[in-house]
Amino acid sequence: MDSEAKKLFERERFAHELGMRLLEAHAGYAKLEVEVKPQFANLHGFAHGSLIFSLADSAFALSVNMEGPAAAVQFSMNIFRPVPVGDVIVGESLQIYRGKSQAVVELRVTDSRGRLIAKGQATALPVHYAEKERR
Amino acid sequence: MDSEAKKLFERERFAHELGMRLLEAHAGYAKLEVEVKPQFANLHGFAHGSLIFSLADSAFALSVNMEGPAAAVQFSMNIFRPVPVGDVIVGESLQIYRGKSQAVVELRVTDSRGRLIAKGQATALPVHYAEKERR
Amino acid sequence: MDSEAKKLFERERFAHELGMRLLEAHAGYAKLEVEVKPQFANLHGFAHGSLIFSLADSAFALSVNMEGPAAAVQFSMNIFRPVPVGDVIVGESLQIYRGKSQAVVELRVTDSRGRLIAKGQATALPVHYAEKERR
Amino acid sequence: MDSEAKKLFERERFAHELGMRLLEAHAGYAKLEVEVKPQFANLHGFAHGSLIFSLADSAFALSVNMEGPAAAVQFSMNIFRPVPVGDVIVGESLQIYRGKSQAVVELRVTDSRGRLIAKGQATALPVHYAEKERR
Repeated sequence: MDSEAKKLFERERFAHELGMRLLEAHAGYAKLEVEVKPQFANLHGFAHGSLIFSLADSAFALSVNMEGPAAAVQFSMNIFRPVPVGDVIVGESLQIYRGKSQAVVELRVTDSRGRLIAKGQATALPVHYAEKERR
Repeated sequence: MDSEAKKLFERERFAHELGMRLLEAHAGYAKLEVEVKPQFANLHGFAHGSLIFSLADSAFALSVNMEGPAAAVQFSMNIFRPVPVGDVIVGESLQIYRGKSQAVVELRVTDSRGRLIAKGQATALPVHYAEKERR
Repeated sequence: MDSEAKKLFERERFAHELGMRLLEAHAGYAKLEVEVKPQFANLHGFAHGSLIFSLADSAFALSVNMEGPAAAVQFSMNIFRPVPVGDVIVGESLQIYRGKSQAVVELRVTDSRGRLIAKGQATALPVHYAEKERR
Repeated sequence: MDSEAKKLFERERFAHELGMRLLEAHAGYAKLEVEVKPQFANLHGFAHGSLIFSLADSAFALSVNMEGPAAAVQFSMNIFRPVPVGDVIVGESLQIYRGKSQAVVELRVTDSRGRLIAKGQATALPVHYAEKERR
């Protein structure tokens, strides 16, 4: 795997807090996995939406930052299949547009049987712009 | 505070993993806070989008489940102000519609100075319907 | 083409108001096109976001209703490439999940050169549920 | 009313195609109304989602462009109450954040009885950035 991807992922401390593992990453694409531990269950006993989103969001961060610094500013997601505790889920982010002022990605999360359980999109702004704003 | 709210929150293990605290909750509304610990920083050194969303999402879960079991199926959010490590952020979920087949909430996250840093919406389906589907 | 698709499309009067044409439709999928007439330009002289969304939304309505009555309750979309007046754009809706309580679709809009200009997702509730609520 | 608002609205040809009327507008805010004519009904006989969104979207365009040229790049919306043909609906856009690289607005649509029927958010990029990209 790309060594830059590994370095970026090492710095993704939130992802490590939740036990995510990097499966693949290159400019515009990233794939991670995480186990649905008992402490990650929601009130109904299935994988918490926050875990599902966090997995996709970490893939999002890697995929866009591999091509140059960018800050996430917006995301949306549908979650449509419940995932039981103990399963291992896979999150992917695929950049579908990258211009000077914005990047757009497609987010996918699948369960261990390969079924799509959640799908979304997210928007990032290259940090060139974002940084200026923050100062 | 409502004792049912406390009980529901105790079962929100994902929220506890991240150190969230319950500030207020009743049917259709919930308010939580969390500290932006160093391990919750993103690649640019600010609060990770996953943390910001997870805070709002836990408030979402409490606010809709206080009125009867409901499963989150969709959400979207804009994050527009960076929050430094060490700050304490507050997440709120306010139900703006509840019908037989869907509930819609408004999500707000503010920093310790009270400035709005993220805003979103989410959709839940009463479990009456969702459960049938899952069997 | 499916005759039920043609009948449903005939009843989509909003689509006809804007001059949309049906290209293809079957349960879970629909494809429409529309010309970007001068009156459909936004303040910057490109195709109005409302036109781009309306095209995708009409495809959405056909794709989900072909499988049984369903009401649109939520949508999100990113528009990332401007389209000049005079171009003909194509909108597609592909159902990626259909359960008893919800249907989720993926929306795509491409320009006459086949480039992706907008992408989104939408959620519908089978009318079985929605109707009960409205009475 | 602000004369700049009137001028901008005159150039919103898509809004005029649908018969929208400008009620109020200033930097960061706009309010429009439209009648749900029979040709604007969806397959179930209620106001088409495309009409509801278009109303909010035109308010969005006015509200952000009053403060300086900006291009809409993303939006999401929940529609939760059906509106019958003949009703007059009101759409509002309120800017909740404006920085150098992005503007975020809140969208609201109410029926003639003042009930909230749809709510959403949208993101725009100041054209300063967007224009560079397009050339």
